[in-house]
Amino acid sequence: MSRYLSPTLQDLVPYTPGDIPRRRSVLKLNTNENPYPPPTPVIEAVRRVADRLQLYPDPNCLKLRQAAAEYYELEPDQIMAGNGSDENLFFALRAFCDAGRPLARPDVTYGCYGVWCGLMHIPQHIIPLEKDFTLDPTRYYDLNETIVIANPNAPTGLALPPEAIGEIAARNPDGVVIVDEAYVDFGARSCVPLIRDHENLLVVQTFSKSRQMAGARLGFAMGNKELIADLERVRNSLNPYNVNQMTQAAGIASLQCEGYFRETCRQVIETREWAAQELVRRGFVVTDSRANFLFARTPKMLSRVLFRELRQRAVLVRYFDEPRTEHWLRITVGTKEQMEILLQRLDKILKEA
Amino acid sequence: MSRYLSPTLQDLVPYTPGDIPRRRSVLKLNTNENPYPPPTPVIEAVRRVADRLQLYPDPNCLKLRQAAAEYYELEPDQIMAGNGSDENLFFALRAFCDAGRPLARPDVTYGCYGVWCGLMHIPQHIIPLEKDFTLDPTRYYDLNETIVIANPNAPTGLALPPEAIGEIAARNPDGVVIVDEAYVDFGARSCVPLIRDHENLLVVQTFSKSRQMAGARLGFAMGNKELIADLERVRNSLNPYNVNQMTQAAGIASLQCEGYFRETCRQVIETREWAAQELVRRGFVVTDSRANFLFARTPKMLSRVLFRELRQRAVLVRYFDEPRTEHWLRITVGTKEQMEILLQRLDKILKEA
Repeated sequence: MSRYLSPTLQDLVPYTPGDIPRRRSVLKLNTNENPYPPPTPVIEAVRRVADRLQLYPDPNCLKLRQAAAEYYELEPDQIMAGNGSDENLFFALRAFCDAGRPLARPDVTYGCYGVWCGLMHIPQHIIPLEKDFTLDPTRYYDLNETIVIANPNAPTGLALPPEAIGEIAARNPDGVVIVDEAYVDFGARSCVPLIRDHENLLVVQTFSKSRQMAGARLGFAMGNKELIADLERVRNSLNPYNVNQMTQAAGIASLQCEGYFRETCRQVIETREWAAQELVRRGFVVTDSRANFLFARTPKMLSRVLFRELRQRAVLVRYFDEPRTEHWLRITVGTKEQMEILLQRLDKILKEA
Repeated sequence: MSRYLSPTLQDLVPYTPGDIPRRRSVLKLNTNENPYPPPTPVIEAVRRVADRLQLYPDPNCLKLRQAAAEYYELEPDQIMAGNGSDENLFFALRAFCDAGRPLARPDVTYGCYGVWCGLMHIPQHIIPLEKDFTLDPTRYYDLNETIVIANPNAPTGLALPPEAIGEIAARNPDGVVIVDEAYVDFGARSCVPLIRDHENLLVVQTFSKSRQMAGARLGFAMGNKELIADLERVRNSLNPYNVNQMTQAAGIASLQCEGYFRETCRQVIETREWAAQELVRRGFVVTDSRANFLFARTPKMLSRVLFRELRQRAVLVRYFDEPRTEHWLRITVGTKEQMEILLQRLDKILKEA
């Protein structure tokens, strides 16, 4: 920390992303990447624009938003594109929270929500999940604060039905309800169709997980056009050229690859269900994940120890050293072959323990 | 504006980027894009990574920062990569300004500085340029505020020698001096070599202009490692995966294309000098621009009218409707052929006027 850093940032604790291994031989199940490559039309779209990078991208992402509007059955002015969901969520918190308008969120959820509140000095109303990590919607009724709910939640994988979120939106007419659907395509249902009924509902999706584009950075925020205009005001005041040309082209192509999208999601779900059963057969407890990860624990070994043992055997998973999650591991669902390697190494570790 | 927007944003006026024409036949001299495509190794680098976009980019941009460190003769921890210079400048203002620490800046300069202050409620100390748009360094002595100077300045194109900036840094030991070198490669001298002597000097460069990568979004912030650690703290609290995989690869490749880089800069400078003479021959007044644009005015026609006339003839230039700039136009330096078309259309407009 330099002596020039603003005192308003001196207590800030940044987010810690999952490790990036240097060796390619490492089995990387720690950042919920998709195990499949992007579809060929996405690769080709990127390659096609590479020779005109001297030109600025369209700061309004018009063609991309038009393609998305058609796909999600919305209007283009109901959609904003961001440099990953993280940027859109940051914009949303800047727009709809302030010192007098706290952010309500579950205690166990995506870690960035709390970090952004720290960065912007937004007070937090932290609402504990139930003992089994389920979210009781009634705890979010009549708050009239800005609310963020990851659905499915991370790192638990548990999902609410859209009707429950709709009810939360209806019961908070003076607060914006942000639904972070990063993992929705792996077996949960989206709240996008509820946008027409709730002017205070903002749905955030990412191309990093189900659309094989973590490396390209693309996310959408979707809601009624006044909410989106507010987000655009923040975006245009911070970084109007936030989505680069290659990513805009890739996003358009991705939305046209519905078959590949559905088939790869189906494969991830199938592998998740199979791997969950295999873990249960070995005495693990797993949550009912609707995401591309499993949240699991074993009574046979401390999770922090198992995390380290796996890392020593070149398998990276995610361990969150917080009171309610310290007995668990979050394991990305890879290909079936990758999960077989994981299970073999787990067997070896637990046998030797 | 929705009724949910934070009252802290209701007076915010976002930045207005230059128009993006829909027709390709338009001569686009309004956003200071480079008229040449990126070099082949940059194109190939992008194409190579397109089939592994399912993986997150390295959030630390380690290889890119190592390549940059070698190029700029710095250490990797003296360099941070951002999603364009705009993001880095925003991070710097967040880190080094606050309600009690104003931003000092010229009255005529890059418009985003003021917008970011609006977004973050940072008070501004606006220091007028001299009547001829030159910057008197002594006006920046002993402020001990955070200072930002675009060098060369936009939209005037005028540059200070690094020694003058070094003296400003020396005379403000308790404030960070940010030098925005977006245009430095077109004939000004960089302050990067001064970093070792001034712990409070932060130099920001972009790949959008001289490196033909406006469409990829890449910028560097360079300074002593404590300043960079402060910026990393903000970046990691806002969007740790801010630079996508394709752009990291393109940036590394660009730094290895020194010959192409120097040659294309040389061509832009040569075209600028020629076009400046041609404008002067036609009675225009031009500043001594060291950037890839000309700042010009003619006594024969109001700039706002000339701007519109050019647009009607499919030539886009930039007009800033502010008191001190309203008599001027900012014209990007394209290829010599493009500048010939510009001059022909100017001749026609002025002849018919």
